[in-house]
Amino acid sequence: MTGIAAAVLAGDRRATARAISAVENDAPEAVALLRAIHARLGRARVLGITGPPGAGKSTLTSALIGEFLARGSRVAVLAFDPSSPISGGAILGDRIRMGAHQSHERVFIRSLASRGYPGGLSRTASRAIDVLDAAGYDVVIVETVGAGQSDVEIRLLADTRVVICPAGLGDEIQAIKSGLLEIADIYAVNKADSPLAERTEGELRSMIGLREYPGWVPRIVRTVATTGDGVAELVEAISAHEAAGGVRVGPRERVRRLIAAGVSDWVKGRMESFSSPEFDALCEAYAKGEVGMRDAWRRALELAFAQERK
Amino acid sequence: MTGIAAAVLAGDRRATARAISAVENDAPEAVALLRAIHARLGRARVLGITGPPGAGKSTLTSALIGEFLARGSRVAVLAFDPSSPISGGAILGDRIRMGAHQSHERVFIRSLASRGYPGGLSRTASRAIDVLDAAGYDVVIVETVGAGQSDVEIRLLADTRVVICPAGLGDEIQAIKSGLLEIADIYAVNKADSPLAERTEGELRSMIGLREYPGWVPRIVRTVATTGDGVAELVEAISAHEAAGGVRVGPRERVRRLIAAGVSDWVKGRMESFSSPEFDALCEAYAKGEVGMRDAWRRALELAFAQERK
Repeated sequence: MTGIAAAVLAGDRRATARAISAVENDAPEAVALLRAIHARLGRARVLGITGPPGAGKSTLTSALIGEFLARGSRVAVLAFDPSSPISGGAILGDRIRMGAHQSHERVFIRSLASRGYPGGLSRTASRAIDVLDAAGYDVVIVETVGAGQSDVEIRLLADTRVVICPAGLGDEIQAIKSGLLEIADIYAVNKADSPLAERTEGELRSMIGLREYPGWVPRIVRTVATTGDGVAELVEAISAHEAAGGVRVGPRERVRRLIAAGVSDWVKGRMESFSSPEFDALCEAYAKGEVGMRDAWRRALELAFAQERK
Repeated sequence: MTGIAAAVLAGDRRATARAISAVENDAPEAVALLRAIHARLGRARVLGITGPPGAGKSTLTSALIGEFLARGSRVAVLAFDPSSPISGGAILGDRIRMGAHQSHERVFIRSLASRGYPGGLSRTASRAIDVLDAAGYDVVIVETVGAGQSDVEIRLLADTRVVICPAGLGDEIQAIKSGLLEIADIYAVNKADSPLAERTEGELRSMIGLREYPGWVPRIVRTVATTGDGVAELVEAISAHEAAGGVRVGPRERVRRLIAAGVSDWVKGRMESFSSPEFDALCEAYAKGEVGMRDAWRRALELAFAQERK
């Protein structure tokens, strides 16, 4: 075993930070590291936190860290920095707000950069989660900015997903995209000391009523991140979701999902824009009844991915 | 050219009915027929009508037929019979309600049966649309029961999609699944003489406000299908959508979408449940950093579809 892997497994903070950098940068030492920790994974619970900008994500994450620490847990946070320079400033401010916990020995906070290609974030995040799991963190909070692909990735990575909605469904709810609403296991109505919290909760409740859930039905918890009100209740809701069963992803299934979802997205993206003279001819043959549907699928898949073969 | 193809192209009703039966049953003469009409496609506009059971779909479709007839159009209706025996009775009733137009020389009404496998409905429907297009119908209305896969198929087939919502968002809106709400170009709030119409329209408006639309923003039209109130406005909204541009699917693109979406669904379905010792080994190799993400996708796709190769 490499020195760094042994140090990570012993819970060494500096080694953990170095190991995450190694997986983030696809450094040569990452392979030996990932191999060495592989058999030691599966203890950490992964908690996804997302919501629109301004919802109070980082303040609530900070309050959650405090609550988990009070319960004796070791807590790690992976925060996704968007490449967008616009939200860059806010993220920096959030990191500073979380700073109070940064030096606590049972807390580890780290920003992750997107690698700038689809699936890049979840790939890095999945490996960073493995490192933090190996380093003995009980809870790994993955915090995203609540826009675009990162929310979908939260769905794949997290055991429990919390979507933060600011009280007052005015213009702000415009930012809560439909995709966000679909992934929530728990809604935190934050800034719940606002007179608008009642209405926000009501609107969420009616949205939940519009959907059908095969198992767990999303819960709503009111929080005031700045004072810590409702944060204990939020942790209780998270525990209830964990206890509900059938929700644990774990390291093996996380990788399987990551690759399976990656393949599906890759094929969907390619097929949506795929065009070639052979595909045109296939479509025409299908339209003329000369080729059956399943044969058309099989042949189209072959055509679209022909150059991927060796 | 076969006799039946020539008769279809001449607008013969009986030949059109026989031709649709041929494509529905994959009869041997279907190939010659589809080949013969292939060069003559592309005039018909395809209108998708869907909504929950009880929304008044068939009454509204009947009213739409009357409005299109009054504007001088030839109108065809393809109604999807679900295999479910529960809704079978209602569908039969709907067919009877549409009966007033059935004998009109510029109207053609036909029920299509699902072939009982994914994509079967859209496959049959796509070919039936081609036959009706060749037979000179200006508008082809595809009416589905508003549950499950058929709504997704409407998305692929139709140039303009109308989702019918009954006034009064009580238990009935439970039936309007999120998938239905995503596909609408136009919402018809039907039974708009109910005092609840105002609220229904308001809830739809706030739902539309939650999403972002790259082009056309869905319109809401109030209708009373039983009296015909609002039906002219609905046709105006349909014309506005057609005129908005970029929405026309057409026969070539319809087949391309059908096959591309079929491939994506096929791969997604397979990947969600795919499991094999080789895939487990691949996931482990990825987790250990021995395989890159893109190589993992490529290899996983090969593994999942190995038996599909010849």
